Amino acid sequence: MDLLPGASGTSSSLALRLGQAFFAVASLLFMCFDVEFYSYTAFCFLVTIMALVIPWSLTLAVVDIFSLFVKHTARQPGILSIVVIGDWVLSFLALAASCSTASVTSILLAFGGSFCTKKICTRYQLSAAMAFLSWFLILVSSLFNLWLLPATL
Amino acid sequence: MDLLPGASGTSSSLALRLGQAFFAVASLLFMCFDVEFYSYTAFCFLVTIMALVIPWSLTLAVVDIFSLFVKHTARQPGILSIVVIGDWVLSFLALAASCSTASVTSILLAFGGSFCTKKICTRYQLSAAMAFLSWFLILVSSLFNLWLLPATL
Repeated sequence: MDLLPGASGTSSSLALRLGQAFFAVASLLFMCFDVEFYSYTAFCFLVTIMALVIPWSLTLAVVDIFSLFVKHTARQPGILSIVVIGDWVLSFLALAASCSTASVTSILLAFGGSFCTKKICTRYQLSAAMAFLSWFLILVSSLFNLWLLPATL
Repeated sequence: MDLLPGASGTSSSLALRLGQAFFAVASLLFMCFDVEFYSYTAFCFLVTIMALVIPWSLTLAVVDIFSLFVKHTARQPGILSIVVIGDWVLSFLALAASCSTASVTSILLAFGGSFCTKKICTRYQLSAAMAFLSWFLILVSSLFNLWLLPATL
């Protein structure tokens, strides 16, 4: 099997996974730290999804590190299917969460100062942007693995 | 090449395309008819995306009808790639639009009667629900075609 860059078990896959986890952590920090995010359902949704992305990406990063060190990529169709499906579901959930957060923030900004101060609204926006970046990296990972999947079956 | 149900050129693909167009039209009607949707960016986004989904799905439905009548499915890798990429981009855009609409509607509902009356808010919700259904059908179409793509290359 050819070694597709970005597919599970390569160094570029490891970089993608670490990027996903990094942006998810950044999104969580911007949203949770000293902000009352639980007043809005969309923000709670974002926090939940980012809290799911972090362990998922870190686990797969550990698997990638293991594969790189032992120079052996274990690409059973079953495991790869689980990775692809998990990536897909998480990528859609992350997109949904970041879009919801971005649009709720835009509405809060439009309604003015009583609902969110400028400083807090900027943090909501940054959190949504980080979630978008995390979504994009998850999407790239899932695409590479999905492309590899038919060859392993 | 095996005839995968749901892939381009089959009757199930035609049903999926017609379903996409139907739900997109329903979403547009709920949003546009007698409602001032252009006050909110998220609603304008939904209208734009649904207006893109309708011609795309109807064009591919016509292609499917043609394939069914002449009993010949033209699956060139180039054309199938365009269909898959178009479906993918539209499915992500449709998800983003429906999530944004749903969350903006929930915020408007929470802020009460001055921003949207009960009747108007219900229509926003219905529009978002129809957009979700349209997104789901586009996703199914894109998955089937993506699955077929490596075999044609």
